[in-house]
Amino acid sequence: MSDEWLARMGLGCVYEPGSPEIARIVANYGAVDAWERLKAGSGPLSHKARLLDLPAVVREGERLKLRFLIPSDEEWPPRLADLGRCPEVSGRTGEPLGLWARGGGRLAELVADSVALVGSRAATAYGERTAGEIAGDLSNAGYAVVSGGAFGIDAAAPRGCHAGRTPTVAVLAGGLDSPYPPSNFQLFERVAERGVVVSEFAPGEHPTRLRFLGRNRLIAALSQGTVIVEGSVRSGARNTVSWALALGRPAMAVPGPVNHANSFTPHQLIREGEAVLVSGMVEVLELLRPKAEPLPRPESPRRPTDGLSENQLRVYDALPKSGSRSVTDLSLQLGMRIPDCLATLRQLDELGMVRQNMQQAWQLRREQAA
Amino acid sequence: MSDEWLARMGLGCVYEPGSPEIARIVANYGAVDAWERLKAGSGPLSHKARLLDLPAVVREGERLKLRFLIPSDEEWPPRLADLGRCPEVSGRTGEPLGLWARGGGRLAELVADSVALVGSRAATAYGERTAGEIAGDLSNAGYAVVSGGAFGIDAAAPRGCHAGRTPTVAVLAGGLDSPYPPSNFQLFERVAERGVVVSEFAPGEHPTRLRFLGRNRLIAALSQGTVIVEGSVRSGARNTVSWALALGRPAMAVPGPVNHANSFTPHQLIREGEAVLVSGMVEVLELLRPKAEPLPRPESPRRPTDGLSENQLRVYDALPKSGSRSVTDLSLQLGMRIPDCLATLRQLDELGMVRQNMQQAWQLRREQAA
Repeated sequence: MSDEWLARMGLGCVYEPGSPEIARIVANYGAVDAWERLKAGSGPLSHKARLLDLPAVVREGERLKLRFLIPSDEEWPPRLADLGRCPEVSGRTGEPLGLWARGGGRLAELVADSVALVGSRAATAYGERTAGEIAGDLSNAGYAVVSGGAFGIDAAAPRGCHAGRTPTVAVLAGGLDSPYPPSNFQLFERVAERGVVVSEFAPGEHPTRLRFLGRNRLIAALSQGTVIVEGSVRSGARNTVSWALALGRPAMAVPGPVNHANSFTPHQLIREGEAVLVSGMVEVLELLRPKAEPLPRPESPRRPTDGLSENQLRVYDALPKSGSRSVTDLSLQLGMRIPDCLATLRQLDELGMVRQNMQQAWQLRREQAA
Repeated sequence: MSDEWLARMGLGCVYEPGSPEIARIVANYGAVDAWERLKAGSGPLSHKARLLDLPAVVREGERLKLRFLIPSDEEWPPRLADLGRCPEVSGRTGEPLGLWARGGGRLAELVADSVALVGSRAATAYGERTAGEIAGDLSNAGYAVVSGGAFGIDAAAPRGCHAGRTPTVAVLAGGLDSPYPPSNFQLFERVAERGVVVSEFAPGEHPTRLRFLGRNRLIAALSQGTVIVEGSVRSGARNTVSWALALGRPAMAVPGPVNHANSFTPHQLIREGEAVLVSGMVEVLELLRPKAEPLPRPESPRRPTDGLSENQLRVYDALPKSGSRSVTDLSLQLGMRIPDCLATLRQLDELGMVRQNMQQAWQLRREQAA
């Protein structure tokens, strides 16, 4: 319970976390000084600060088994400092003053290798299945999935990780006393078992539009890259992608059917070069570790004609599907000298693709003619 | 029936159209000289040339109501000349010697504004519907759709155009006497009513693997840009896209569900920056005429909170969904001076979003609380 810790908690209760105002004040004065100045000052924020029962906030955190993390903590992800050097996005900015956290996982460890997965709240079955699969595959590959824990993709992502190797992180836009949305109560419990649920907002604070925007900056800032799965013309998830881009982290988008409204935002991001198209976990990881060995790709099925020379292919294709043809006929049809034609037929014979019949004419082997 | 016309027809019957050999010979000698030299020479091709009954080929063309077009014809699309300056792709090359054509449309006019639409033969219902829609929209926008007339996307594309304003073009890899595949007989008849069916290959010639590759170069070369809809790991349509790229024309790909094999090639082309993602006709045309006015986009649905200032949004969001709040409470909650808070509430009142009740407390207007 250092001064720094109490000051950051107090400032986060009085100022709107994520606002340019508090970012500027802490940058100028440091948290401890800023908190003392605030309490000693006049004006409504100072009035609010003096009315704040900070020990009661601490006790409420303890009662709820929350940790209040600050940048000097071991559990604080170093990556969050990038927010201090990042431009504003939709009026939100700055490294958080602190983070309220709950769960068995340690935040810094978890997000060391991590991917944000965001998307439509009104997701389709396709979107939820795809998000769940990518999340599960990332989890098994050792990556923590960071998401918003709301509806649609937000809920499908952590669900996809539950069976996986690596626990997941949910970032909320309100207090952890009553995680929003309440219907996801069991989901948050499940995330907290091995992972962690975090929020910039003290217990008792409710999510608002601005807070969702501020929350999005944390989702992008905690993870190495952001993947969007589904988003209609008005997509909140697009805001998280903007944060990833502002932070210089890879932005990725999963495509879908062109005739569904939820494909609009991912497709627009890809088309305009803001996000890279990804189909699954392998392609996500290729972008996060571009210097690593390329991951295995599905192999092209081999065809018997693969690797044939142009002459071999021409002779092979000139043979009828059924029946046979003499070397003279083939030579005339193809405009190829008879010795060349014969040599090519012998090569194809050695490859097991054609054979000479009793009448000395040439035909495809039965399994080739299928 | 000029010498040039007969020479090109003859050379096309003896040499393999699309081969580097015939491209080189015509470039060096011109068609008339090359044809005379060939007939006078020795070797199997000269033998084949002397055996060719060219008048019979002409008569067969007349019987089938075919036109044999050559570069000096008015109906010859000037765009095909680009093939003479284009690198080889999979061993095929060069402007065609001539084109056999059938149908009520004039080729050069038709393809003046045109788009190639290619894709999987084993298309999904999604792929066929999407290709049909894009083709129909392009046709109604005055663009001819150029396709291969085979199965799957190849067949869905011209079908989508039948009801449209602009007729369509099918490019085949064999003679027009027995268009391949025979099961598409009615489709080809329909295309020929107002559009045109063309082929590099004389009547009697059958499609082969190499000829499909050569045919793909014509699909790409006839049109202003190429769109691929569906293609698995081994996609013939990818070859047409390679031709578009070799010709410096826009290559476009329609995305689809990531869990279907037919999305592999379009997604790979997009991901690797070879093709641009397109969702429909509007985006295709944006790429074909980049200097034109941007086409209309679906409009974002308006929300009542659009255009609110940050303070307005904070006050608005701080009001409860039901019930009311006093200006003093709001001021304290938001850390905003009472006069500022009141001024903001009055602005929201003027916008019809909040109102003051009988007890002087503030609440959301009923239609806002929904």
